[in-house]
Amino acid sequence: MAVVANRNSGQESPLNALDLLIAMVSDDLTRVNETIVARMHSQVSLIPQLAGHIIAAGGKRLRPVLTLATSDLCGYDGERHVKLAACIEFIHTATLLHDDVVDESDLRRGGPSANAVWGNKPSVLVGDFLFSRSFELMVEDGALSVLAILSHASSVIAEGEVLQLMTANDISTTESAYLDVIRSKTAQLFAAACRLGPVVAGRPPEEEAALESFGLNLGIAFQMIDDVLDYSARQEELGKTIGDDFHEGKITLPGILAINRSTDEDREFWRRTLEDLDQNEDDLRHALNLMQRTRAIDDSIAMARSYGDKACDALALFPSSPMKKALLDVVNFCIERAY
Amino acid sequence: MAVVANRNSGQESPLNALDLLIAMVSDDLTRVNETIVARMHSQVSLIPQLAGHIIAAGGKRLRPVLTLATSDLCGYDGERHVKLAACIEFIHTATLLHDDVVDESDLRRGGPSANAVWGNKPSVLVGDFLFSRSFELMVEDGALSVLAILSHASSVIAEGEVLQLMTANDISTTESAYLDVIRSKTAQLFAAACRLGPVVAGRPPEEEAALESFGLNLGIAFQMIDDVLDYSARQEELGKTIGDDFHEGKITLPGILAINRSTDEDREFWRRTLEDLDQNEDDLRHALNLMQRTRAIDDSIAMARSYGDKACDALALFPSSPMKKALLDVVNFCIERAY
Repeated sequence: MAVVANRNSGQESPLNALDLLIAMVSDDLTRVNETIVARMHSQVSLIPQLAGHIIAAGGKRLRPVLTLATSDLCGYDGERHVKLAACIEFIHTATLLHDDVVDESDLRRGGPSANAVWGNKPSVLVGDFLFSRSFELMVEDGALSVLAILSHASSVIAEGEVLQLMTANDISTTESAYLDVIRSKTAQLFAAACRLGPVVAGRPPEEEAALESFGLNLGIAFQMIDDVLDYSARQEELGKTIGDDFHEGKITLPGILAINRSTDEDREFWRRTLEDLDQNEDDLRHALNLMQRTRAIDDSIAMARSYGDKACDALALFPSSPMKKALLDVVNFCIERAY
Repeated sequence: MAVVANRNSGQESPLNALDLLIAMVSDDLTRVNETIVARMHSQVSLIPQLAGHIIAAGGKRLRPVLTLATSDLCGYDGERHVKLAACIEFIHTATLLHDDVVDESDLRRGGPSANAVWGNKPSVLVGDFLFSRSFELMVEDGALSVLAILSHASSVIAEGEVLQLMTANDISTTESAYLDVIRSKTAQLFAAACRLGPVVAGRPPEEEAALESFGLNLGIAFQMIDDVLDYSARQEELGKTIGDDFHEGKITLPGILAINRSTDEDREFWRRTLEDLDQNEDDLRHALNLMQRTRAIDDSIAMARSYGDKACDALALFPSSPMKKALLDVVNFCIERAY
């Protein structure tokens, strides 16, 4: 691992592969952040206030970083990628805001989400604003090809989110339905983010297809690992909350594998906890045990790894370069998080 | 009034000005409806189900009708206006779905809204889908000018909706703040709908500006009358629900005028009912009395009429034609609804 000054602590500390990728595009990323702050502004003060809350908490900006990185990989040296990376982050943020809207019947979820602070309605409306603003930025960019990619991605994301609602609390959900959900709700935006690089650089269709495939498969692997982490004893040791999906009855890969490998008695446990949401204090612990016993966690990670491998394969047609290596390392990093 | 077969009852009955305008664009409107049904489809069955619920209940399609009518006024004889009118309806429907999302604390609102049937979250996500699908349709149309108009309108609408939340339960809300809200949340889409006619017809900027002004002022007048109808004794006689805005503490023009003209005692009444939402059974009746006594209702209608007049003036540069007359009559109809 590279050793670079850690920007937060000022100490020297080893950077993980994602930090390293971020460092490689840091000048561009600074301009993306400036664009985000400038363009989320509105005279209606609640909008920048609420949007700022979620964007500040928005983590590492993985999706816009992918746009910057694939632009660099494709040798692009213009300016368009900065605004388009901001579009990607706006769409992602709007999705997060809308994803956090809870039903009246569903007030379990903790944490200071925007809707917990300001209520559902402002969260929905500020999400709409960011989404519209994202399209305004695309119109300023002026390329119909970009508008086509991102308007299509946005519909597919919404379809994936609705499909996820339909599979919730249904233990007969198949692996294939789960894949449909995560391919749509998560991987589609990764794919679009990565495809924008070759698009702005004017590269041939093969490179567009290759980077779209890279993003899609990385996105699938990323979401699978995210879903594994929600059942990870190691995460719990690190002080992170686990079991959110379990408590909501969201059906994800570790659960599907464990359910498929259940005895009748275990199946009744899954039915009670995930379908009826009739959960006792010890049930999460029992769920983790069942997942360990059925190898559901290990096999989920193995499946994520196979999608990670597909992502890496998709980069084969690009010559070796530091950026290509950084992207390959990020795939691996996204999977290694599970350990 | 013209006498035309009423399509619903099969009986001969006099048509109002809006029905007449709809009849004049009925062939195009049939194709708009076909486009709406075809393009709200998704393999995710809940999407067409929920979208169909609200689109079927969506009334007279005034906004897409305005796109069809202004296209006709501008002599357009192509096909683009059909798809773009469907875009307008999709944006309107998405806004309605998101507007109906209630906060946990706000479960008073009655009626079978989509969120009452399916919950908040599907309503939000299907709204997102329709909104994205609308942009996909615009991309198919292929004109950046159209995308610029509608992406800008969408951000302004979201801003207006947030501003409306911020003025709710605040009896110091000014007429000017109210105008900002309705200009953004309602009139902006009317303006965009009317501007698309001259845009697809390739008419000069003066005609674009004139029809945008027509739509904007019609939209303001329309919303003012809508807000008056929520306090209309006549509506109540017709069996319609009134007082929704009052019960939610939404501050609209009749309330603002009545509050401005209040005695101290009356002001305390408005503070209790609209700010604290501490309402007794007789309070709506008392509010209606105060509005009558202060002439708040009559003056609200007069103000709507002045915006209606501006809308009519904006059509001055178009030569006389049956379509121009129909549009002028619709302005008048939108105001006469108040009686």
